[in-house]
Amino acid sequence: MICEIIAVGTEILLGEIANTDAQMLSQGLSELGINVYFHTVCGDNPARLASALEIARSRADIIITTGGLGPTADDLTKETIAEAFGKKLYTDEEQQRRLHERMGPTRTANNEKQAILPEGCTVLVNDWGTAPGCAFFAKGCHVIMLPGPPRECEPMFRHRAFPYLQKLTGGAIASNYIKVFGLGESAMEDKLAPYLNTLTDVTAAPYAKEGECEVRVTARAETAELARAMCAPVVTRILGMLGDVAYGVDVSSLEEVVVKGLCARGLTLSVAESCTGGLIGKRLTDIPGASQCFGAGYITYSNQAKIDVLGVSPQTLEEYGAVSEQVALEMARGARAASNADIGIAVTGIAGPGGGSESKPVGLVYIAISHAAGDKVITPNRRYSSDRARVRNSAASTAFDLVRRELLMEG
Amino acid sequence: MICEIIAVGTEILLGEIANTDAQMLSQGLSELGINVYFHTVCGDNPARLASALEIARSRADIIITTGGLGPTADDLTKETIAEAFGKKLYTDEEQQRRLHERMGPTRTANNEKQAILPEGCTVLVNDWGTAPGCAFFAKGCHVIMLPGPPRECEPMFRHRAFPYLQKLTGGAIASNYIKVFGLGESAMEDKLAPYLNTLTDVTAAPYAKEGECEVRVTARAETAELARAMCAPVVTRILGMLGDVAYGVDVSSLEEVVVKGLCARGLTLSVAESCTGGLIGKRLTDIPGASQCFGAGYITYSNQAKIDVLGVSPQTLEEYGAVSEQVALEMARGARAASNADIGIAVTGIAGPGGGSESKPVGLVYIAISHAAGDKVITPNRRYSSDRARVRNSAASTAFDLVRRELLMEG
Repeated sequence: MICEIIAVGTEILLGEIANTDAQMLSQGLSELGINVYFHTVCGDNPARLASALEIARSRADIIITTGGLGPTADDLTKETIAEAFGKKLYTDEEQQRRLHERMGPTRTANNEKQAILPEGCTVLVNDWGTAPGCAFFAKGCHVIMLPGPPRECEPMFRHRAFPYLQKLTGGAIASNYIKVFGLGESAMEDKLAPYLNTLTDVTAAPYAKEGECEVRVTARAETAELARAMCAPVVTRILGMLGDVAYGVDVSSLEEVVVKGLCARGLTLSVAESCTGGLIGKRLTDIPGASQCFGAGYITYSNQAKIDVLGVSPQTLEEYGAVSEQVALEMARGARAASNADIGIAVTGIAGPGGGSESKPVGLVYIAISHAAGDKVITPNRRYSSDRARVRNSAASTAFDLVRRELLMEG
Repeated sequence: MICEIIAVGTEILLGEIANTDAQMLSQGLSELGINVYFHTVCGDNPARLASALEIARSRADIIITTGGLGPTADDLTKETIAEAFGKKLYTDEEQQRRLHERMGPTRTANNEKQAILPEGCTVLVNDWGTAPGCAFFAKGCHVIMLPGPPRECEPMFRHRAFPYLQKLTGGAIASNYIKVFGLGESAMEDKLAPYLNTLTDVTAAPYAKEGECEVRVTARAETAELARAMCAPVVTRILGMLGDVAYGVDVSSLEEVVVKGLCARGLTLSVAESCTGGLIGKRLTDIPGASQCFGAGYITYSNQAKIDVLGVSPQTLEEYGAVSEQVALEMARGARAASNADIGIAVTGIAGPGGGSESKPVGLVYIAISHAAGDKVITPNRRYSSDRARVRNSAASTAFDLVRRELLMEG
């Protein structure tokens, strides 16, 4: 089945809010195995909504609208849809009663509008706001109307529309996400294409994501369990082809893998950050429960701080400069010692836009790790970016990847 | 003029990402006085993209597409658009040269695809990624193609498409952005509405943005200078109405105001972070040149680190708990002393999702500042959020705002 999502709201067209309802609905529809080929956003304008409905009706089996169910004069979704699908409107007494109960004396004449619904519809009772939703079948199409505010739209979809749709579909879909760091999207596709092209019942698609890649593997079957079973061998095969650049399946980020890996082994980590300025600590502590493996980090932006806080030797700084293998190593050792952690990592580099030179260009970064098994320092072998945010993000990710690989070797 | 935005990307239809590009573009188009009546999202599917283009062409003067310019086989935006608008494709040598320069030996055969462009187009050079954009006029419609990743799409629109569109709309536009922290969008709107409604030639629109607000003031005139002169008195008037919750005009962020304010006064800052885990340091060092006022920061996630690194007294921790006014103050004093900075700030709180209790709920945060003029601690007087990222971001912003207000008092 094919569904089209139409968001009604001038505030989206003015850029005041993003269409996050469509994202939430798309996730749920994908879960149900319903294909979404188009999202449309139109304003609170009956003629343009009517034209969007007409187009959607020609290419979808299900239309879900969000927004325009409010009490104000420009909320015209119900009226416009009723007309487009040849439905009369009536005042639903039960919804009117609920409205009176919910709003009490703050109710205005406008609010009464919210109890008006298309004849013969299934009312989707709204326990999270004042505007009920509804669903009906007409002119060969299922139409579902949901309120726009995300805090109403989400539960209304999950608890009201989802069961309605489940009756229509039968069947289920399963997806796995293979996460990859250290291989570009094109290189990954080159590597996988010969295999991916042989797939028939399972689809696998590569994506680029902020300095990383992922492969989404999806299958559709009668039950979720069957669909998952179809994905499994494909995931295993792709993991085998990718080797250790694949850092996880269905995990959110490198830092999540690092935090979980450290916690599972009972190890602790300390970080010393120069050019990343706190970003590594921030990303580590994005993960709830990071406190189990992370006690302290040191943002040593100045040379003096590197000396005072981490015990980097002034001679090393003098001789090699702050952006050097030697200083990175001393920082990692210092961070590990200062907080008595099992592993210390450190990053020093030139994030730009200024501060670069011929021998040390913007984008040059050294990343060091110190632990009982030995110390190591790397400098990512890639073309230097001159984008400050990208240099910093990539340095932080590479530091996490270094920890991940050390944990793999430890087993 | 009417513009339609078409996002190309199956990942949006699957709900993996929200269509934030459309939001960003809509804001910019509104600034240019260009009407947006529809957003459309379609997948990486040539037939469906062709049909979306056909529909958009019938109802818009300008089509902006985002996405599908990448190097992989499913990136087909250029090919599909060229066919729909009767344009041949050619390999642009200058773009090919740039691509080779940028990618170096990591380049694959697929990447070459990115230098292919429609004949006669205006190339929109991409300094933020590998895929160039382009613009052309054909079949009565202006078409602009931009890359999908937001951190490329935004600067490509701002620096490449915006000037192109400005030529189409005629005249010149000037905008000022008044940035506001510490006042909700509705409260701000209530405060400003009586004045904003009196405006005729100048438009002023309030926006809510990740825990902050802004007011965009825009005027159109024959020259940019005239347009700027029309904005100026409106900006002054709004600043007067908002008072000190307005933290800047045409600045990017609170942290930028803080870094500039510190540098201008020759002052230094040190930070001690518990629940924010490095986020304050990260945001400070997002600003190029932060090293002038920021030498060291301390991520003291564990109690032991608070004691060892910042000299927080074990008795204070024992008596009041890590999330308390007293500990926040000792952390700020400790950070200031440890790095010999003029100002120390500290944050301690419960970011969630776990770790909350009845007396100390998730979202409770203490923020302290220590400097020569005295020490102070605050706890934001707002409804507690239970969203980890929001709690942390809001705590960091509040810490910056505290520094900003102290600097204002210093003059």
